[in-house]
Amino acid sequence: MEYRIEKDTMGEVQVPSDKLWGAQTERSRNNFRIGPSASMPLEIVYGFAYLKKAAAYTNCELGVLPIEKRDLIAQVCDEILEGKHDQQFPLVIWQTGSGTQSNMNVNEVIANRAHQIAGKVIGEGEKTIQPNDDVNKSQSSNDTFPTGMHIAAYKMIVEVTIPGVTKLRDTLKKKSEAYKNVVKIGRTHLMDATPLTLGQEFSGYVSQLDHGLHALNNTLDHLSELALGGTAVGTGLNTPKGYAKRVAEFIAKFTEHPFKTADNKFEALAAHDAFVETHGALKQLAVSLNKIANDIRLMASGPRSGIGELIIPANEPGSSIMPGKVNPTQCEAITMVCAQVIGNDVAITVGGTQGHYELNVFKPLMAANLLESARLLGDACESFDEHCAQGIEPNNKRIEELVNNSLMLVTALNTKIGYYKAAEIANKAHEEGTTLKEAAIALNHLTAEEFDQWVKPEEMVGGLK
Amino acid sequence: MEYRIEKDTMGEVQVPSDKLWGAQTERSRNNFRIGPSASMPLEIVYGFAYLKKAAAYTNCELGVLPIEKRDLIAQVCDEILEGKHDQQFPLVIWQTGSGTQSNMNVNEVIANRAHQIAGKVIGEGEKTIQPNDDVNKSQSSNDTFPTGMHIAAYKMIVEVTIPGVTKLRDTLKKKSEAYKNVVKIGRTHLMDATPLTLGQEFSGYVSQLDHGLHALNNTLDHLSELALGGTAVGTGLNTPKGYAKRVAEFIAKFTEHPFKTADNKFEALAAHDAFVETHGALKQLAVSLNKIANDIRLMASGPRSGIGELIIPANEPGSSIMPGKVNPTQCEAITMVCAQVIGNDVAITVGGTQGHYELNVFKPLMAANLLESARLLGDACESFDEHCAQGIEPNNKRIEELVNNSLMLVTALNTKIGYYKAAEIANKAHEEGTTLKEAAIALNHLTAEEFDQWVKPEEMVGGLK
Amino acid sequence: MEYRIEKDTMGEVQVPSDKLWGAQTERSRNNFRIGPSASMPLEIVYGFAYLKKAAAYTNCELGVLPIEKRDLIAQVCDEILEGKHDQQFPLVIWQTGSGTQSNMNVNEVIANRAHQIAGKVIGEGEKTIQPNDDVNKSQSSNDTFPTGMHIAAYKMIVEVTIPGVTKLRDTLKKKSEAYKNVVKIGRTHLMDATPLTLGQEFSGYVSQLDHGLHALNNTLDHLSELALGGTAVGTGLNTPKGYAKRVAEFIAKFTEHPFKTADNKFEALAAHDAFVETHGALKQLAVSLNKIANDIRLMASGPRSGIGELIIPANEPGSSIMPGKVNPTQCEAITMVCAQVIGNDVAITVGGTQGHYELNVFKPLMAANLLESARLLGDACESFDEHCAQGIEPNNKRIEELVNNSLMLVTALNTKIGYYKAAEIANKAHEEGTTLKEAAIALNHLTAEEFDQWVKPEEMVGGLK
Amino acid sequence: MEYRIEKDTMGEVQVPSDKLWGAQTERSRNNFRIGPSASMPLEIVYGFAYLKKAAAYTNCELGVLPIEKRDLIAQVCDEILEGKHDQQFPLVIWQTGSGTQSNMNVNEVIANRAHQIAGKVIGEGEKTIQPNDDVNKSQSSNDTFPTGMHIAAYKMIVEVTIPGVTKLRDTLKKKSEAYKNVVKIGRTHLMDATPLTLGQEFSGYVSQLDHGLHALNNTLDHLSELALGGTAVGTGLNTPKGYAKRVAEFIAKFTEHPFKTADNKFEALAAHDAFVETHGALKQLAVSLNKIANDIRLMASGPRSGIGELIIPANEPGSSIMPGKVNPTQCEAITMVCAQVIGNDVAITVGGTQGHYELNVFKPLMAANLLESARLLGDACESFDEHCAQGIEPNNKRIEELVNNSLMLVTALNTKIGYYKAAEIANKAHEEGTTLKEAAIALNHLTAEEFDQWVKPEEMVGGLK
Repeated sequence: MEYRIEKDTMGEVQVPSDKLWGAQTERSRNNFRIGPSASMPLEIVYGFAYLKKAAAYTNCELGVLPIEKRDLIAQVCDEILEGKHDQQFPLVIWQTGSGTQSNMNVNEVIANRAHQIAGKVIGEGEKTIQPNDDVNKSQSSNDTFPTGMHIAAYKMIVEVTIPGVTKLRDTLKKKSEAYKNVVKIGRTHLMDATPLTLGQEFSGYVSQLDHGLHALNNTLDHLSELALGGTAVGTGLNTPKGYAKRVAEFIAKFTEHPFKTADNKFEALAAHDAFVETHGALKQLAVSLNKIANDIRLMASGPRSGIGELIIPANEPGSSIMPGKVNPTQCEAITMVCAQVIGNDVAITVGGTQGHYELNVFKPLMAANLLESARLLGDACESFDEHCAQGIEPNNKRIEELVNNSLMLVTALNTKIGYYKAAEIANKAHEEGTTLKEAAIALNHLTAEEFDQWVKPEEMVGGLK
Repeated sequence: MEYRIEKDTMGEVQVPSDKLWGAQTERSRNNFRIGPSASMPLEIVYGFAYLKKAAAYTNCELGVLPIEKRDLIAQVCDEILEGKHDQQFPLVIWQTGSGTQSNMNVNEVIANRAHQIAGKVIGEGEKTIQPNDDVNKSQSSNDTFPTGMHIAAYKMIVEVTIPGVTKLRDTLKKKSEAYKNVVKIGRTHLMDATPLTLGQEFSGYVSQLDHGLHALNNTLDHLSELALGGTAVGTGLNTPKGYAKRVAEFIAKFTEHPFKTADNKFEALAAHDAFVETHGALKQLAVSLNKIANDIRLMASGPRSGIGELIIPANEPGSSIMPGKVNPTQCEAITMVCAQVIGNDVAITVGGTQGHYELNVFKPLMAANLLESARLLGDACESFDEHCAQGIEPNNKRIEELVNNSLMLVTALNTKIGYYKAAEIANKAHEEGTTLKEAAIALNHLTAEEFDQWVKPEEMVGGLK
Repeated sequence: MEYRIEKDTMGEVQVPSDKLWGAQTERSRNNFRIGPSASMPLEIVYGFAYLKKAAAYTNCELGVLPIEKRDLIAQVCDEILEGKHDQQFPLVIWQTGSGTQSNMNVNEVIANRAHQIAGKVIGEGEKTIQPNDDVNKSQSSNDTFPTGMHIAAYKMIVEVTIPGVTKLRDTLKKKSEAYKNVVKIGRTHLMDATPLTLGQEFSGYVSQLDHGLHALNNTLDHLSELALGGTAVGTGLNTPKGYAKRVAEFIAKFTEHPFKTADNKFEALAAHDAFVETHGALKQLAVSLNKIANDIRLMASGPRSGIGELIIPANEPGSSIMPGKVNPTQCEAITMVCAQVIGNDVAITVGGTQGHYELNVFKPLMAANLLESARLLGDACESFDEHCAQGIEPNNKRIEELVNNSLMLVTALNTKIGYYKAAEIANKAHEEGTTLKEAAIALNHLTAEEFDQWVKPEEMVGGLK
Repeated sequence: MEYRIEKDTMGEVQVPSDKLWGAQTERSRNNFRIGPSASMPLEIVYGFAYLKKAAAYTNCELGVLPIEKRDLIAQVCDEILEGKHDQQFPLVIWQTGSGTQSNMNVNEVIANRAHQIAGKVIGEGEKTIQPNDDVNKSQSSNDTFPTGMHIAAYKMIVEVTIPGVTKLRDTLKKKSEAYKNVVKIGRTHLMDATPLTLGQEFSGYVSQLDHGLHALNNTLDHLSELALGGTAVGTGLNTPKGYAKRVAEFIAKFTEHPFKTADNKFEALAAHDAFVETHGALKQLAVSLNKIANDIRLMASGPRSGIGELIIPANEPGSSIMPGKVNPTQCEAITMVCAQVIGNDVAITVGGTQGHYELNVFKPLMAANLLESARLLGDACESFDEHCAQGIEPNNKRIEELVNNSLMLVTALNTKIGYYKAAEIANKAHEEGTTLKEAAIALNHLTAEEFDQWVKPEEMVGGLK
């Protein structure tokens, strides 16, 4: 491999000639061989691209960066956002906890690529723009990395998670309405209970997701606060007057999301409670989705020796040994995602507790986990929606059979004959394997006519009065 | 011990004569000997007392319960709320997951005590009011227990947690203002960094708690939704028309908190995402408090061989073997509480994922853990506030010594001589153990006058521009 | 209330006259009003009683404590172990993280009670024995508290957890043998699969618990290591020669458990990885028990509209509104316990990560959580065993019906006609609602005789060859 | 793109012509677009390659597979293990929870590649070997996937984790011996305490890792148990006599690790407690490493305004804004890894609790998380060892200064003048800012000569007697 010499304040480093990165990126590659390479999420890199461009514009506007440099920086940032330099960010999550080296990776790539754009050869001559003094002007890793995190996370939540969950929610809502007259047995403690409609059951899922989306939306305000302008410790040292507010405005403009400068930069550097908060809502959605997917696979269980109330799409052969088997694979994928999100929540929580003084140095960990959860939840909901939820159909014959069979229809008699006598009927029918009606009459608690009049599953689901 | 005979639909049970509970409570006592007795939180019992009274009023108003029964029930509920019957609730958390037996415990105690109030002897004659048909009228364990949970949790959050956290927040705010001119060294990665004021540092803590309180308040709306009126599976079977809305209004009136009936009762029985949501915010507060308490003990470490920037109150002898030792014991208590809350969050999450069909049967677990967290956080903040935060004093001499000593003051020179030359100065001073000024002059990067003019800690903290 | 004056190195404190504790206990009561009082587990206090007695014997044997003092100390320790002074330990978990104040609580109670035994009046005259110089001789909170923790935890595991789990394991083993010929349908992905016997199914549960018990036993060695002798920082300062080894021998003798002195006292004070390790095994058991209890409630679901393969004991009325309902309440109690243990594991983990330098100050948290988990698991297994597992019965009629119905019996044909043709048969039968045999013959893949010869559920469970 | 037609029991599917996979892999690619593609760890694929080869050998030996087919299968497996087909496994973790589609992916690739090796063109003519009937003979996804998981995990633990941790442990051991005479101040509660040597402090770290490695080794026995031979539900349906034991022997031979057939196949399919167990030990190591890395960064904090007792290697410029800054970046990377492992533990725990009946369908989740943790811990220890631990040096001047300054040297006087008088000395010195000696003499508790004789830091660390 061919190399060129790059240097930083510690001296010279050999860097592969065909790469745009510089000395500090290369040091980091060598010092942190932990897990697969390039594990730092590209979304963070793109977040950096937005903020570097915004910083260049702000610095220029405030008179501390020439317009030529601004434009060079902005041009490279645009190229990065177009995905042209995805191979230039080889660093891992498991580096310094401030993400300094990823900040420098971006600074170095921008500086070197700008040198190219300016018609020069990388490694030859004075750099056209300097990674620290120009690209990083009015910035520190300590405020850029959290800014990049927030941009990446906000975008992922708004562009992937919320649309994915909403799509599934809308399908469940449609199902809820379509099945509003399908009377089925209710089950509590997994045991037969009084009836409800399949539509009511699904309406509970819709309500869960509505509450979850509401909770997630509640966290976006905190997530929209940007650290940029705090520089090293939150005081804004080495930034021009007006910088923090203005740079956030540029970021809002470039990303088309309502970002704003954080009121308190000390919190924004030293704590990442916004990530704890947002991921808490993601975890809540995971809890909800786990319940929903579990219910669906239980109701679809069978086909002959399970519950069998729902029919779900058969998307693939289910077994390599059992011919003709069909499994609730989308339920399995999404519940695994839920378990991952629940685990990620703990990783983020642990990271969040461990800020010290002016800096939390678990930034890449927290960012990577939140981005993973947000992506997986959005994708899994979309997949579940398309390959399972939309295709759900009730097995009406089975549903009817099971509800009519139920001993818990006796509950309708509580208000007529009291709990004790009703219990007597249910117990007798259960022990003797008869119908409720037979037991009721045998016990002389009511007549056949009364039974028929009082015990009607379809009138036991009348909704909330 | 003396016993009397109580019975339920399964038959007769011996109950200690001096107790107000009945057959089902006694069965549960015998069937669930798991952990210490009476672990079911009394706050839940009180939540039940509110809702049983409200149900009696609503049932009466809607014409299904005579006024005499209403008043008897209400009178016992008031006695329970006055703490007169705390010994009558012997059940444990680890019972049926719907809390059915705690519901019946309340029903039985109310029925028996009402019998006494009516001038009868418990165990003799027809019960004046029936536990199931009267006290539990228009109710099920499945909607009462979650209602009791929500009442208990809401009250604890609003009456204990928020006041405790707010008290600490206000003290930190005062400190933040008091120390706004105390310039000290900043630290990032635990390493010396550029300066800030002690007031700024504390303002970060205030911002953390403000965000946390905001997040907690965001969850109260979901928590104010009550399941009551859903009865067995959410359909409201066996409730009179208008019941659900009206009973919530009575609960709001009796508790003086803005409770309302849940829009969707299926969600309210089968999922407890409101608890997941609220506890997520408690966990966020735990994360914040852990950071704050950690910082304070680090800054107070010493007294001679640590950081020593803060002086915290000496509340007790710190060591049984080391005479004269003083320790940051309030920091330790509160960080242990934080760890507990983080653990409780996982317990609640796991419980939350496991609803099946129409019911989540991890209710007592979820309730107990949330109540514990909410209580501990409120109490710990109050304790920390009173016995530590209020008494914090800066050690001005030490603070000044440490900030003046710092090599990172060199950062002020970036905008004057560039990052590389500034780094040269810092490295030289570090290696040779000199001051920055000496190194700067020796390197000819600037004059002594320039150094004095440009490197002023008090001008490096100027706040965000 | 009457008070007497007690003092410590910080000055005088008023203590209720009828209490045996002294100044430092009282200070702690006032400084840490966090959660319910006296939450520090009594098992820890008893652990202290063992070690204080052992220390007295060792100090005496090594010539640094007179025999009269030894005997007084030992006598009070015995009284504590008899439960005579349970009311004298009012402190909470949420105190100093080294448990110093609980150590002093024990020291003070022993000193004051010894004074009484010596015929004196508490608060009058020179103390017969001194809390710090005599009771605490050759000790520090930093080595006594972890020693008390280890004693308490080891005893709880060996005396409660292991017997409880073993009892349940033995019942399941018996069931496994009893049902070794009950052929039933297998289910994978909750869907119908090839058959196995109910005995085989239960053998999996037995294997899980056997592995779990094995894992738990593996952790006992680490747990048997005692910190005592390390004193303040692990160096053993102020202990007589031979002390550490000898005091562990006395503890082993008094407790009748194989305790030994830790090889490395620095680890034993600054880390509590032994607790992390042991609790990891408890969590594994929780994972296993959750699976087992879940399976049992699924198989017992119904009675008419669920799976219904198992009949479990009806211990109590299951519903306050649905007459005659029976629920798997023991399954619910134990799975709630599992969720708690999983949460506690995270609390312990977080506490375990946070040792600093020579001391971990999350000791009371870690101790309380482990003791709770160990107690709950042991009790819950015992309860589940007695009130559920022992009474489980197969519903043979239902089991037979479900297995004969299954399409997955077709798997037996793979080795005869290949996976593809077998799949064709299963799909045809599924779509047309016929039996496998009918479909097989219709497709001409085999004759009726071949079908009867090849597809025999009872020959498909033949065990592992 | 060019396509060919592949088919399975559900019909025809278009597959990219240049790929070796078949219909079911392609279906899975389309049905599970969740997160980045090909996220299923390659280690699992390699685990499959070992087991498919072993199954072919066993099937052949037991007379159910011709030797030509065995050799073809084995040859492709060897190619897979050489990394020649890494691009042929595009599936994600978030698929069916039994990993069926990854099993089929391997079956299909082996079948198609064997067809090529046999000189045929993929997609033309009858397949030389069949994915289900030949490659998957005597197997099911339900026993192959857990077998692949166990092989992959065992290898990762033994080949990456243990060597990495051991390397670091050995370096710390060397440091412990090298610094056995470096007397330094001890710190408890982060506060100054009695002295110990730096070697003793490091010996605690060594002991932690020794215990952790011991715990990890304890779990290997369970992990070495293989499910293969259980097929669909654990009964071994469709396997030849002797298969299970023999196939494990072949796997042991091919992998050179002591794998064995699981005694109970029902446990091996329906539970993955072995993963819970092993990951529990990984989490314990994470807890230990977090403590160690935290201590090191605290002791290395400064350089001028922190603790400054240790000097760690400066591997890279620490800050993009603060020139000359050096940070404990390896400590940060490894503590982030620890947080991830702690989070992964919860994901695995949640997955582990959720087996149903004969199958746990959280297999890919559990496998991926364990492999990640095992890899990250091994790599991070190696990185930490090479780039930090090996280069640690004590700052002797600073260490000496801090220990001599300490008030806690007064503890040496307990056994001479008692705890109370010693406390008086410490308090006086603290309040007046004098030395202990000055305070001691002023109080007349001892003479200057006595002080010099009794208070010698180097004699206070004498080790455990």
